Amino acid sequence: MNMKKVLVTGDRPSGKLHLGHYVGSLLNRVKMQADHETYIMIADVQALTDHFATPDLITKNVHEITRDYLSVGINPELSNIYIQSQIPEIAELTIYYMNLVTVSRLERNPTIKTEIAQKNMEDSILVGFLCYPINQAADITILGADIVPTGEDQFPMIEQTNEIVRKFNRIYNTNILKECSCLVGSTGRLPGIDGKKKASKSLGNAISLADDSTTVKEKIWNMFTDPNHLKVNDKGRVEGNVVFTYLDIFHENKDEVSALKDHYQKGGLGDVKLKSLLYEDIESVLTPIREKRQTLTNKQVIDVLQNGTQNARKKAQSVLHSVRNVIGFNY
Amino acid sequence: MNMKKVLVTGDRPSGKLHLGHYVGSLLNRVKMQADHETYIMIADVQALTDHFATPDLITKNVHEITRDYLSVGINPELSNIYIQSQIPEIAELTIYYMNLVTVSRLERNPTIKTEIAQKNMEDSILVGFLCYPINQAADITILGADIVPTGEDQFPMIEQTNEIVRKFNRIYNTNILKECSCLVGSTGRLPGIDGKKKASKSLGNAISLADDSTTVKEKIWNMFTDPNHLKVNDKGRVEGNVVFTYLDIFHENKDEVSALKDHYQKGGLGDVKLKSLLYEDIESVLTPIREKRQTLTNKQVIDVLQNGTQNARKKAQSVLHSVRNVIGFNY
Repeated sequence: MNMKKVLVTGDRPSGKLHLGHYVGSLLNRVKMQADHETYIMIADVQALTDHFATPDLITKNVHEITRDYLSVGINPELSNIYIQSQIPEIAELTIYYMNLVTVSRLERNPTIKTEIAQKNMEDSILVGFLCYPINQAADITILGADIVPTGEDQFPMIEQTNEIVRKFNRIYNTNILKECSCLVGSTGRLPGIDGKKKASKSLGNAISLADDSTTVKEKIWNMFTDPNHLKVNDKGRVEGNVVFTYLDIFHENKDEVSALKDHYQKGGLGDVKLKSLLYEDIESVLTPIREKRQTLTNKQVIDVLQNGTQNARKKAQSVLHSVRNVIGFNY
Repeated sequence: MNMKKVLVTGDRPSGKLHLGHYVGSLLNRVKMQADHETYIMIADVQALTDHFATPDLITKNVHEITRDYLSVGINPELSNIYIQSQIPEIAELTIYYMNLVTVSRLERNPTIKTEIAQKNMEDSILVGFLCYPINQAADITILGADIVPTGEDQFPMIEQTNEIVRKFNRIYNTNILKECSCLVGSTGRLPGIDGKKKASKSLGNAISLADDSTTVKEKIWNMFTDPNHLKVNDKGRVEGNVVFTYLDIFHENKDEVSALKDHYQKGGLGDVKLKSLLYEDIESVLTPIREKRQTLTNKQVIDVLQNGTQNARKKAQSVLHSVRNVIGFNY
């Protein structure tokens, strides 16, 4: 009997994974996969809510993102990597959940509210976008998730999921659906190299796991530091200085980072020296990832996805069967 | 090569079918089935949008409604009778369509607006209810419908369906989805025996196709006529008199109905005489239906549903495959 807790997580395949994903979620997945029944979803259907008019932006990344996973140490013997669109049971469960949620509840979902404001779409909210928390609740519950690793901004999504679970179980007088818990990563969000926003697949301000050394160097050399730190001897600012934010995370010797910050603030420490140091640190992270990627064949990637999708689908079918049973739709 | 036009229609299994369905749609389906590739959907998923908390109200009627169909002359060799929930491809297509429709467009749908007002649910509109036009667009298009027989109040639904078709074909630069046409029945809505509203499965004011003679007699004897027509010699009103509305539809000799109306308006014609005449007319409609129903075995009903569902699903799978192809989700 499998007593491991079920962990469900995933990414939208709208671009290559980058260092932000690495420290924010991937490392953690690698760490947890041995002790958890792990499902990693490539959320192509969810990505469609933003990119329905350019679906090839999504589909071309599905294999790439799988390579990213395998390269960082996701072990397909321990983690099931699967494609959302290949589990049609999620769509069916979503339709059933849609009867349990009011439109105004969705409109009050803080994550949705923020995104609507960010995207300036008050007057043209697409139904798929408004409803993606319901779709996500189906993603999570159809695999019987216990744990969903997530950023703090996604708390409202988990809350909405658990609300649906409680309502379903109450209405149908059952306990087949499980509530889940959030698991917040220890690392905050990695800023973009431009220092303005978080590192993002779509903004092009991130160091991708698949970047070669030349590209990494170029990106680090363009990294935002302190725009007023013009000469080596100028006093420099540490706050908002992306190179230091990255060093805080990637440089092992924390005392050394502390000393460098002092030096930089007093003046006499040049950006190039710092950037060279960071470059070495990042390269020591990316080199083994690149080497692993080199060994991956197309067939391996396809096999991993087929296998993971098969496992996830089997579980999804069994949960959906129970759901249809309590509704009475298994004629 | 099958050159017949595809006709898609159906009913929510939230109660027994009645005379309103018979004259409003069933007779027409029987007439059209030889010349059309006909699909008749038992819309259990759609019925769930109103009855999610009492699903057995829906599920217990699925076999009953199939018996209604077969009893009135729907021929399972010509018409595919199928259960909506057994075609999961509809759910999947609905999810894809949700990215093509704005929330405000749904809120402007006149059918939805009217129903929201009728049901007093402005503040608590359920997502499943608001989105059912999208679900219905999937029902219709996943079978490549050319013709959808419908009441006038459902025009906005067909309009919404065709809007989705055009948007999908434009965005994905394809012509795989087909627009459909409405077909409005010749008979208006049959009023309920109470004369207040239309005959309705849920209001209990209709003569069901499965009613026995005693029940039919009782319902006709309780039918709303003219509340001021107390004595036989009183002058009576024809307008709003349900017995006359039914005689207009069910009594073959239209001249006789005309003469009866004159007589009634002048006074001297009693309700009982009229009701006896109507009772005979209705019984002559219902008797062969009852006789046919008697011959139907459980196994026949199950076979008809299995067969019809299999045929509908095969077609749905092929359309969904094309949809996934243009999006790029057949990896």
